[in-house]
Amino acid sequence: MISFNSRINKLVAEKKSWLCVGLDIDPDILGDYQVSNLKKHTFKVIDATRDYAVSYKPNFAFFERWGSSGFKWLEETVKYIGEDHIKIADAKRGDIGNTVAQYAQSIFYHFGFDSVTINPYMGTDSILPFINNPDKGAFVLCRTSNDSSGQLQDKLVDNIPLYEHVAKLVNDLNVLDNIGLVVGATACDELLKIRNIVPDLPILIPGVGAQGGNLSQSLKIGNQAGIGIINISRAISFAGDMSQVAIRSAAHRYVEQMREAIV
Amino acid sequence: MISFNSRINKLVAEKKSWLCVGLDIDPDILGDYQVSNLKKHTFKVIDATRDYAVSYKPNFAFFERWGSSGFKWLEETVKYIGEDHIKIADAKRGDIGNTVAQYAQSIFYHFGFDSVTINPYMGTDSILPFINNPDKGAFVLCRTSNDSSGQLQDKLVDNIPLYEHVAKLVNDLNVLDNIGLVVGATACDELLKIRNIVPDLPILIPGVGAQGGNLSQSLKIGNQAGIGIINISRAISFAGDMSQVAIRSAAHRYVEQMREAIV
Repeated sequence: MISFNSRINKLVAEKKSWLCVGLDIDPDILGDYQVSNLKKHTFKVIDATRDYAVSYKPNFAFFERWGSSGFKWLEETVKYIGEDHIKIADAKRGDIGNTVAQYAQSIFYHFGFDSVTINPYMGTDSILPFINNPDKGAFVLCRTSNDSSGQLQDKLVDNIPLYEHVAKLVNDLNVLDNIGLVVGATACDELLKIRNIVPDLPILIPGVGAQGGNLSQSLKIGNQAGIGIINISRAISFAGDMSQVAIRSAAHRYVEQMREAIV
Repeated sequence: MISFNSRINKLVAEKKSWLCVGLDIDPDILGDYQVSNLKKHTFKVIDATRDYAVSYKPNFAFFERWGSSGFKWLEETVKYIGEDHIKIADAKRGDIGNTVAQYAQSIFYHFGFDSVTINPYMGTDSILPFINNPDKGAFVLCRTSNDSSGQLQDKLVDNIPLYEHVAKLVNDLNVLDNIGLVVGATACDELLKIRNIVPDLPILIPGVGAQGGNLSQSLKIGNQAGIGIINISRAISFAGDMSQVAIRSAAHRYVEQMREAIV
């Protein structure tokens, strides 16, 4: 049995890819509000990118929007991805322990995800039920990619920003080699400080593409120790004319850029 | 049209009840793992408590655990509650703006909830899409009821705990009279400080019952200005022999205690 962190490290090395494809299937961009058609597009994105992606990250919000039929689509999506890629549930869950245990049951054992994004505001209680099985991993929000991320995350506690305290807390929780962080590509200075605090942990890096983060810089910093994987959502799922060819070539182009940056 | 905060204030005054019934339908307590039976129990709890509750708060984790069939049960539960009670989605969501807009769509317009619990770690971006309609409200996590809540929330920023900064931020966001806070009953000193920062906002107070918070003290503090409603989950949903009579009498007993405390 291989721990979650070892598994993701190994897959990145084998594929020479750091690409996580975010599945945020926005009906407004697609101009289609039929769940059956959204599902078709999701499967098209997966088929077009299998050779390049190490990971897929369905964003729960875009599925939950449609209630039970959205969750059925999500169940089918996880099965469709299969076992050759790391499946990350972008759910950003956080709650008291007995509730989080239910979310872990849902995400890992009902849906069959390999890992999940979680929110640290409620502390260790809210993290532990997600990391009690070394096969299953969790990425904890540390410094996020949105404009208002700094309002709480940058606040200084003992002269150190709150997100660094989160990084230290998470580093100490990595007993089973199955926890990592989420750090936005829009914050490269912060990413560097965080990478130095958590040399061994995988970092999931969103914010490249539509949000304007720097791919090559964030990839280099993220991989100067441990591994950093870059999430791209809209810029792949809705590339060009949204055909399979356009999506595939966008994924290919991103991976080529990554390989050039990492050499 | 009446704003969310006015509506909940009015309902509390009319019913002389501060009871929010939490629907955390734990299959391990019920000893039953059939969604159809969990649904029956949920409806039994609702029927038994309609006269006493001002609000119902389904905890999403216990529904999500079962995937699409759990979300179907949640859709039916929201309909079954109907229009005479405030329906709070206990979902603790938080993400970047375009994602949170999808969660708002899901919770308010697909499921039909009146309000939602949300997590402030990502700042204002992650809150605004939940409060752009005065009919619909949001309760932001401030000081939670779990053991590790203080790890981040109590950290001092400019000599003031982080949760007080959250309370101030949320108070400033209350432009449409539709935002409130979540503060655990296990932290009465903190609740008092927070009440003084947000004299007008509704406060949702979990942590009484199984978690051991003080009902009468937290209720008094929560209602010395604005309104504070007390969430009870397990101690009502699984009261006594779990019959309708036992559940109804537990709810009745809690409301009587509340009326005595508030006089």
